Amino acid sequence: MALVNDNYVDLKESYLFSDIAHKVAAFTAAHPERKVIRLGIGDVTLPLAPCVVEALKKAAGEMGAKETFRGYGPEQGYDFLHEAIVKYYASFGVELDSKEVFVSDGAKSDCGNITDIFNNADTILVPDPVYPVYLDTNIMCGRKIIYMEGKPENDFLPLPTADLKADVAYLCSPNNPTGAAYTKEQLALWVEWALANDAVILYDAAYEAFISDENIPRSIFAVEGAKKCAIELCSLSKTAGFTGTRCGYTVVPLALERKTSKGEVLSLNKMWLRRQTTKFNGVPYIIQRGAEAVFSPEGIEQCRANIAYYQENARIIMDALTEKGIKFYGGKHSPYIWLQCPGNMGSWEFFDLLLNKLGIVGTPGAGFGKCGEGYFRLTSFGSRENTAEAAERILRDL
Amino acid sequence: MALVNDNYVDLKESYLFSDIAHKVAAFTAAHPERKVIRLGIGDVTLPLAPCVVEALKKAAGEMGAKETFRGYGPEQGYDFLHEAIVKYYASFGVELDSKEVFVSDGAKSDCGNITDIFNNADTILVPDPVYPVYLDTNIMCGRKIIYMEGKPENDFLPLPTADLKADVAYLCSPNNPTGAAYTKEQLALWVEWALANDAVILYDAAYEAFISDENIPRSIFAVEGAKKCAIELCSLSKTAGFTGTRCGYTVVPLALERKTSKGEVLSLNKMWLRRQTTKFNGVPYIIQRGAEAVFSPEGIEQCRANIAYYQENARIIMDALTEKGIKFYGGKHSPYIWLQCPGNMGSWEFFDLLLNKLGIVGTPGAGFGKCGEGYFRLTSFGSRENTAEAAERILRDL
Repeated sequence: MALVNDNYVDLKESYLFSDIAHKVAAFTAAHPERKVIRLGIGDVTLPLAPCVVEALKKAAGEMGAKETFRGYGPEQGYDFLHEAIVKYYASFGVELDSKEVFVSDGAKSDCGNITDIFNNADTILVPDPVYPVYLDTNIMCGRKIIYMEGKPENDFLPLPTADLKADVAYLCSPNNPTGAAYTKEQLALWVEWALANDAVILYDAAYEAFISDENIPRSIFAVEGAKKCAIELCSLSKTAGFTGTRCGYTVVPLALERKTSKGEVLSLNKMWLRRQTTKFNGVPYIIQRGAEAVFSPEGIEQCRANIAYYQENARIIMDALTEKGIKFYGGKHSPYIWLQCPGNMGSWEFFDLLLNKLGIVGTPGAGFGKCGEGYFRLTSFGSRENTAEAAERILRDL
Repeated sequence: MALVNDNYVDLKESYLFSDIAHKVAAFTAAHPERKVIRLGIGDVTLPLAPCVVEALKKAAGEMGAKETFRGYGPEQGYDFLHEAIVKYYASFGVELDSKEVFVSDGAKSDCGNITDIFNNADTILVPDPVYPVYLDTNIMCGRKIIYMEGKPENDFLPLPTADLKADVAYLCSPNNPTGAAYTKEQLALWVEWALANDAVILYDAAYEAFISDENIPRSIFAVEGAKKCAIELCSLSKTAGFTGTRCGYTVVPLALERKTSKGEVLSLNKMWLRRQTTKFNGVPYIIQRGAEAVFSPEGIEQCRANIAYYQENARIIMDALTEKGIKFYGGKHSPYIWLQCPGNMGSWEFFDLLLNKLGIVGTPGAGFGKCGEGYFRLTSFGSRENTAEAAERILRDL
């Protein structure tokens, strides 16, 4: 008699985005004349950079000719892409060995699959508010989960305390959903804690390309010692608008080792290589060529222009909030603006107000965890026109 | 203190293909004048079909324009591809609901990841000889594994016995590495066994496009009752030469339910949907458009022509083996020809002979499990010219 995984019973269904969709649909049906501006979901809207599109087309052409056709590639990615990523890291001062870089179909996959190489006896530390994937993927393994609270008192950037005990800690910086980003000094405290506790930090750097301050590290490996205690997950989704094109990468340092429960010392790099060569067959050749183009000089320039566009959107929203006296976090090194609902409103109360009065859709902070209650997420991924109009509505009608 | 997954210690390193590569490199170095013909690995060599390349290029262009750009898509695949796959199944008489179809980056990923939804208390039944992924992915979970022997007496098509007890059974038909394919009557015995034991069959149909006989089902769902006991894994890798383009699909029937160890009844379709929405973010839009083209009338014709090319290669090899009096399996509904090493040679002994005397590289059957000893795999994925030359060498020099 086949039994299924008991832990799936413990997963909570998330109705966040479907609840939002239902409310928006009801509003639109009742007010067909009103233009709704969506600043809710974390998806990009600008098209792929021209040099990326060219690379994709060229690679598609190669796949159509016998001489240039490619079959199975290396599961961990082609050398040309490893080299491009190593060079990219070097551009902000982080040295990697290309064996430390694993190309994947995105940070969400790696974030879920990396749980495979850890032990179910591990206690998992996740921030609250939190990207739900950290939580759900560990619930699926039946692991013990503890929380660290993000709140105004710590600028939504929780730091380790002397008595904090956990085995695996998720950090996301710049953070989804709060937009808050750790400084190098703060990250050094986390690395120090992890080394002292033989913990492993799973560092989600998906939003690193939005960082515009040299004191905010683009990679946890900018901190000394991190290669002995951290794995970094990153993606081209936000860096280059790859949300529908799917390419990411995970850095597992060669120096990272931990023990099994029986005391055998294993290399996490080798474990991840074994996991990926066994359960994955690599990213499409065509997509890897597109990703390579992201890291070319033109690619970096074209993608930077797109990010500048979103950053200007963020500035427009932040200016409106500042003028209205609404407190917020993020926005500077992140496409997310995390605002405190005015007048002590709850997250959903503010959602209703914003939708019904202003015709703007955002995301209630309560959807990201207990500590998100009373907060609200807006994104800078809309068009300039819509973002400017949303700011006007905030200034005029809120 | 973070602990790692204990079970990784139990994984055996496979040196099969690296051992082969070393032997071939040594031979080439010693005999630079000899032309080596590689009929070893299971990778396609013909380019993608022209209509697929066109679809890929068109979709790449769409991603470069604001009006047609696509961000996050549905994790389980776009409707257009679900519909194409449902129609494809209907063409060989199998009805699916589009909710039963999950698009993925390939059968290897799904084959590994599907282990997530089962219980570690399950006993796993795998054939020997075997595609190593079935084995290793379950060793990673620490599950008990039992074997069923493929041997000449059962034409390498093991069938269930009355006393066979297992919870999850892997079947691969047409088989890798033996090329043997179950008839509908034989598959019905497996379905009957699974239903009687509340077991689940994981049916690997990656080579279904090579089937050229109506009595050999293209899908396990051609057998009545299978929707209550089977999951089917399939891929465009061999159907359409997508080994480097990466697209597959898994069919999890809506009617498939099993219990947790505590007796809660869960839908495996809903569990897999939850797994995929949590740990996966879908296949690139561009690739899904390429996959859709595979199932168009031109796509089916163009891919069929490629398969006919490989089938003719198989015939050429089979004719040579028949003329030499060498017994073999497969080749008819499969790109693989599984031959009995002549003169009671061991797999590696025959490998050395074939390489050194004939300059042909194949794969020793012993690399696929204990029951593979004394057998040898050749593939039809070479070029016509090389395949014909290999056949000549077999006839002349073996």
